[in-house]
Amino acid sequence: MESGLVGQATTEPAEFFTRHRQTLEQAVAATHGRHFWTPYPESPSPKVYGEDAAAAGLAAFEGHLGTDFPLDQPGADDRIVTERSPYGIALGVGYPHAGADALVAAARAALPSWRDAGVRTRAGVCLEILHRLNRRSFEMAHAVQHTSGQAFVMAFQAGGPQAQDRGLEAVAYGYDMIARYAESVRWEKPQRKGEPLAMDKRFHAVPRGVALVIACNTFPTWNTYPGLFASLVTGNPVIVKPHPRAVLPLAITVAVAREVLAEAGLDPDTVLLAAERPEERLAAALATRPEVRIVDFTGSTEFGEWLEANAPQAFVNTEKAGVNAVVVDSTDHYGQMLGNLAFSLSLYSGQMCTTPQNIYLPRAGIDTDEGHKSADQVGADLAAAVGKLLGDAARATGVLGAIANDGVLRRIDEAAGLGDVLLESTEVAHPDFAEAVVRTPTIVGLGAERRDVFGREHFGPISFVVTTDDTEHSLRLVRETIAERGALTASVYSTDEAVLDAAERAACEAGVNISANLTGQVFVNQSAAFSDYHGTGANPAATASLTDPAFVAGRFNFVQSRRHA
Amino acid sequence: MESGLVGQATTEPAEFFTRHRQTLEQAVAATHGRHFWTPYPESPSPKVYGEDAAAAGLAAFEGHLGTDFPLDQPGADDRIVTERSPYGIALGVGYPHAGADALVAAARAALPSWRDAGVRTRAGVCLEILHRLNRRSFEMAHAVQHTSGQAFVMAFQAGGPQAQDRGLEAVAYGYDMIARYAESVRWEKPQRKGEPLAMDKRFHAVPRGVALVIACNTFPTWNTYPGLFASLVTGNPVIVKPHPRAVLPLAITVAVAREVLAEAGLDPDTVLLAAERPEERLAAALATRPEVRIVDFTGSTEFGEWLEANAPQAFVNTEKAGVNAVVVDSTDHYGQMLGNLAFSLSLYSGQMCTTPQNIYLPRAGIDTDEGHKSADQVGADLAAAVGKLLGDAARATGVLGAIANDGVLRRIDEAAGLGDVLLESTEVAHPDFAEAVVRTPTIVGLGAERRDVFGREHFGPISFVVTTDDTEHSLRLVRETIAERGALTASVYSTDEAVLDAAERAACEAGVNISANLTGQVFVNQSAAFSDYHGTGANPAATASLTDPAFVAGRFNFVQSRRHA
Repeated sequence: MESGLVGQATTEPAEFFTRHRQTLEQAVAATHGRHFWTPYPESPSPKVYGEDAAAAGLAAFEGHLGTDFPLDQPGADDRIVTERSPYGIALGVGYPHAGADALVAAARAALPSWRDAGVRTRAGVCLEILHRLNRRSFEMAHAVQHTSGQAFVMAFQAGGPQAQDRGLEAVAYGYDMIARYAESVRWEKPQRKGEPLAMDKRFHAVPRGVALVIACNTFPTWNTYPGLFASLVTGNPVIVKPHPRAVLPLAITVAVAREVLAEAGLDPDTVLLAAERPEERLAAALATRPEVRIVDFTGSTEFGEWLEANAPQAFVNTEKAGVNAVVVDSTDHYGQMLGNLAFSLSLYSGQMCTTPQNIYLPRAGIDTDEGHKSADQVGADLAAAVGKLLGDAARATGVLGAIANDGVLRRIDEAAGLGDVLLESTEVAHPDFAEAVVRTPTIVGLGAERRDVFGREHFGPISFVVTTDDTEHSLRLVRETIAERGALTASVYSTDEAVLDAAERAACEAGVNISANLTGQVFVNQSAAFSDYHGTGANPAATASLTDPAFVAGRFNFVQSRRHA
Repeated sequence: MESGLVGQATTEPAEFFTRHRQTLEQAVAATHGRHFWTPYPESPSPKVYGEDAAAAGLAAFEGHLGTDFPLDQPGADDRIVTERSPYGIALGVGYPHAGADALVAAARAALPSWRDAGVRTRAGVCLEILHRLNRRSFEMAHAVQHTSGQAFVMAFQAGGPQAQDRGLEAVAYGYDMIARYAESVRWEKPQRKGEPLAMDKRFHAVPRGVALVIACNTFPTWNTYPGLFASLVTGNPVIVKPHPRAVLPLAITVAVAREVLAEAGLDPDTVLLAAERPEERLAAALATRPEVRIVDFTGSTEFGEWLEANAPQAFVNTEKAGVNAVVVDSTDHYGQMLGNLAFSLSLYSGQMCTTPQNIYLPRAGIDTDEGHKSADQVGADLAAAVGKLLGDAARATGVLGAIANDGVLRRIDEAAGLGDVLLESTEVAHPDFAEAVVRTPTIVGLGAERRDVFGREHFGPISFVVTTDDTEHSLRLVRETIAERGALTASVYSTDEAVLDAAERAACEAGVNISANLTGQVFVNQSAAFSDYHGTGANPAATASLTDPAFVAGRFNFVQSRRHA
């Protein structure tokens, strides 16, 4: 319709599309083909990001500490400071605070120009934002480390390139879902006599309205970028509501977005940060506004279900808690299986929505390449494998990171009373951060009758070895607990193709993604953008998959015009 | 996964896909290109459908009268008769009745085999069903005529080929949305040293669950086929709940579907008819079952809103009431404009969800190719155009059809008291059916202050000429009434490109499809599958568009498995 320009552009908006077109087309092809692909290297190597990148990133992060974050947003009525690093250092970054009225009004005002910019310009702007975020991956790594508690390398990868991948994936889906359909057509219907009936038609992809993304403490960027970029590319202005303990990664993100929008002469208020005061419940206030028509949420089941029930005006996507499952039936790589599981349980102290919680094991034990192992032996060997992985403090902290918040600590303490403790959680001293709170995982043994315990989520480094009658019983428990409470991941170990098939069928019925016989450098709690789905949308843990057609299709509508040719 | 076969196949399921593959691929291309295309000719000509088709169709229809419809469904506890032709003839067709428990149990049992059949087999089965329905278009035409009250030619076109088009369009979207993404992939991630990390991945499109389609009285097939076929192709068994006054068209549809399923060795209970007793409220009972995960509904705003609020477990698509708008600003084809509007108001006695209701006109009148016309003159000329169109009784009944039910009659009577009657509704004697209830449209003049009247839907042959301050005022009323009550269609007449642009912008903001300067054989109340959207999903009249990506994407999820290569 119109150009969408509202300010003085220093870059032609279409220029960003031209610049990134090839990347976008490769991204679309990857979503179709689901092969390995990424434009954002995950290695924090100087060879990839440049010799000075690491030092510059650290300096940029340190430059934020104790200062007001430079974010020029409308309606700011206060500056607020809400973060504290799980590694013990003081952040003291101040953010502008605005109320729901001011945020919604600014976003609404930005909508027409962003809508009218068209999908190509919007995709170009999104890719430029992601490109600049990629160049700031070291700064982002420190910001993610000191808000989530992730170890540095993980914070770099999951908070930087892998989050950018997930953002780009969402842009690719949204772009494809709009650009695949003709924008205009000369429609000609043959008539029995004479000339065909001819109409000229135009099709406008119009956004639903103002979008809200409610972010979490543990993956402030990775879990936010899919909703943020899916809403943006489909034409919706976005209000980003960070978790009060993890604001900085999203303040950087919003600042980069506003910078690119302004350069393109578009309204910077297309992306807004909604930093909130403690106990303000700004997310609930925003999510129930009639103008807010899209909500993406990652966090607790309680608030996720509240949003699903109380924001009927919005297209609501939630990622909540679940009970992730591992079925151990048999293996011909016993040592590698234990090593793989030990790493999955330890990575980021189990503070991933994808960390396995319930490891189902036949009471009679399992057959392995090292002979038959009793259930007790498997439990003991798994505990030993975790102990071996985390034996060295430096290596341990590189895997574990720090405990993000007191709720996790409390659950670790409670776990000891829930069954037979196969592995105790211990404190680890961090070599660099004296005040960091670092804990190793605990593993608790339970009988299959204790569904009251393993049937609900215990978020953190807490897992259960559940002894069952047999593998069929294990699979039934997987289906039932996931139908009831959901899961983001499932995993199976077996040397029997019939068991692997039965597990895949159970996964289809439970609606959960499943990995089989992971022994190498692929872990059930990690998923690769463009190829692996994160969640399915088919069980109570999440209404959305990152990313599939349903995740983007609900964010826009087609409006058509026609006239005689 | 598995073959999905549950019975003795007389046709290999894959054979239907092979047979119809080219049609399917053309259909997918048409949804992308949005050009004119149809495999189902809309002309009831002997040259197209064969010399005997008309007589055979009539005989087949008459064969149903006064008999039990041959439908072998599980759980039937009764036979019920609920239909009465608006043309006065007795139908007396008996249908098997089953309760919600039996229907849901049968549909659930059919789910695994239909899911496991895979999208190609499902698409092939759907296209074979549509092909056989196409060959029964004459039988269907009589069934639609004598349940909806549509005139015969319209019942043939809208109930037959055009409904089949909409069904095929839904199949094309669903097939495309699944088949576009790789079913399996060898994923290879380069490593710094050595061989790439290689995983074999499979992706299963799994259905949401049991689907329910709640049909309406006036377009029993056209409004049902999109939801029915969108759910089927994405793997969901479907329970079809017809309106008690329009069962026969859907009984034929369900019978054809079950016949094709059985021939393919698939479970016929993948498609079930839910004929209900009067006042049974079977739709509400079914829609709130936890196993029912998709609901498609066409009907009243009241029940549509009830479904939206009370079936949170389901993906709910509703088409409800709206206030369709025509903005008259100016024209250089005055006579043709009046003729086009007169036909739109008269077609099927205004009993279309797409019939214009509110015709907004500047108080000062309009400029035309026949000179300036006062608002009063335009109203009188429109009334005269309707009168001229319907002057001959045979022609009139061919356009008007019959009044579907007493609610419409009541609203016609009430309309006379709502404002200045510009055109009175009159009774027309039908040349063939003495007891047919046939009425001409009424047109009522109102001032813009009477939003209490024109701001809500008056379903039937009732329209309002609303005089406004000017065209800007007219467009504001369009935006406001549609934001409040929704609309399926909007239309504008102007010789001024600036007004046409403003109208298109207003349509984007209101979220309604708009037609400009319709004067020939294209009417605002008609839409062409593959090219025109029916509704947008962006205003209160409908949460769905027939068909767009959002209409199909919510009906399935991807579930993934992966293992080391």
